[in-house]
Amino acid sequence: MARMVIIYRKPADVEAFERHYFETHVPLVRKIPGFRKYEISRGPVAVLAGSPDVHLVATVYFDDFEAMKRGFASPEGQAAGADRRIYAPDDSGVQIFAFDDHAV
Amino acid sequence: MARMVIIYRKPADVEAFERHYFETHVPLVRKIPGFRKYEISRGPVAVLAGSPDVHLVATVYFDDFEAMKRGFASPEGQAAGADRRIYAPDDSGVQIFAFDDHAV
Repeated sequence: MARMVIIYRKPADVEAFERHYFETHVPLVRKIPGFRKYEISRGPVAVLAGSPDVHLVATVYFDDFEAMKRGFASPEGQAAGADRRIYAPDDSGVQIFAFDDHAV
Repeated sequence: MARMVIIYRKPADVEAFERHYFETHVPLVRKIPGFRKYEISRGPVAVLAGSPDVHLVATVYFDDFEAMKRGFASPEGQAAGADRRIYAPDDSGVQIFAFDDHAV
């Protein structure tokens, strides 16, 4: 499968972040064509190496990298990306990685 | 489940990194008590936000956070951690996150 991993830093207003994330963002992501699965961290994220103060880690799955690209290029994908920039702008310390994966 | 996500920066010597990773590290991780599943990125990692030059993203799964903690506290877990510090020291830019996750 392909996955997108999103690592959010601790927001200034946790309550506002959570409200926006769960009420608005998650439903937008689930509408992206080709979306398969969505997993998020529950509870604290332990940082064993790297910069601390991580708030939440999300993983969104598609069948493969091409399907993920098509999904995010669609109107629904563009809407989800635009929404993310509202509650976690690119300069907020958010990290987003996208890749094909396989079991080893 | 619980997962550990490890994000490696581009190493100076990619070939040496890959050899150590696949021949030595992966077998050590697979011996950790409670280990369930191991997935790594195949091919390039697209960085949509955050610092670029990511080489590889690995995800290792356990049944839950407690099982993961027990696994890494075991001799096999300690050996895998010590091995990781050889090919990717803490100051190499490696990031390691551990958390319980759930589907949304």
